[in-house]
Amino acid sequence: MSAPLTTDQVNYFMGLALAEARKAAVIGEVPIGAIVVQDGQVVSHAFNLREHMQDGSQHAEYQAIIEANRQLHSWRLPETQLFVTLEPCIMCAGLIQQTRITDVYYGAADPKAGGVTSMYELLSDTRLNHQVNVHAGVRADEASALLKQFFKAVRKRKKAEKRARHLAAENTGQK
Amino acid sequence: MSAPLTTDQVNYFMGLALAEARKAAVIGEVPIGAIVVQDGQVVSHAFNLREHMQDGSQHAEYQAIIEANRQLHSWRLPETQLFVTLEPCIMCAGLIQQTRITDVYYGAADPKAGGVTSMYELLSDTRLNHQVNVHAGVRADEASALLKQFFKAVRKRKKAEKRARHLAAENTGQK
Repeated sequence: MSAPLTTDQVNYFMGLALAEARKAAVIGEVPIGAIVVQDGQVVSHAFNLREHMQDGSQHAEYQAIIEANRQLHSWRLPETQLFVTLEPCIMCAGLIQQTRITDVYYGAADPKAGGVTSMYELLSDTRLNHQVNVHAGVRADEASALLKQFFKAVRKRKKAEKRARHLAAENTGQK
Repeated sequence: MSAPLTTDQVNYFMGLALAEARKAAVIGEVPIGAIVVQDGQVVSHAFNLREHMQDGSQHAEYQAIIEANRQLHSWRLPETQLFVTLEPCIMCAGLIQQTRITDVYYGAADPKAGGVTSMYELLSDTRLNHQVNVHAGVRADEASALLKQFFKAVRKRKKAEKRARHLAAENTGQK
């Protein structure tokens, strides 16, 4: 068994996941980032790409896990830690459970869709063949701030677009 | 909205999913198959490939959904039906819910890992933003028989391998 992570390590790896989330924001995707770690080393990193890929599975943690499968040549990922800026959804919690990840560290909670603490506690279900250690709220404020900032900008853009359309219609009417 | 499927259509499409499951068995994978249908036409088909791909997400229905995302150029799959020979797990139920599939028809129940009826009822949760119509037990006997036959053959092969190892050890001892 590998040594438990120190608080510094936990904060450092979540910092890398937050950096991934920022990349998603830059290209207009909901800012969520994820990292898989084994033996204190980053195995894979990813950010949300659902809109660009038009693929329902392209959540950040989902991609990071599949990339870790590739890197480690196995669908089983024992002795690994997943860092993700938002609480995983039901689908991702299912994949985490199936791939036997040891620990999940997440940032902000997701009250509407979270499958780990908020809506379901899928990773702690002792009826399933594997349970995962859950560490909630790691650098949660930063993860939340990124999401809020992103959705605020989306609303602002939509409002501006609506105004532009309105003005265009008025101008057309005057002609 | 598209017309509801007839019983003949339902049996026909599940027959295609069962044919997919048989392909998995041929290459030594647990026999599970899936089909996505839209407007009475097959959009995608797939069988379980988890061992060959060493990728935790390669369940039959999972692959069929992702392929449907590709075929229909969208991560949303409204007005589609998924046919799968075994009750979907938590991960796949999460993906089904997220991709807004309209109906799920499944064959055998999965008491140990099923996320639709057996362990959880994830597709009927009204707290989530989409619910799916579930049709359980379609050609369930055939799906079950395939699985039983597969695991029986696996046990037989393991027993034969054990016997061969034992004989080899005895022969080595005699020399």
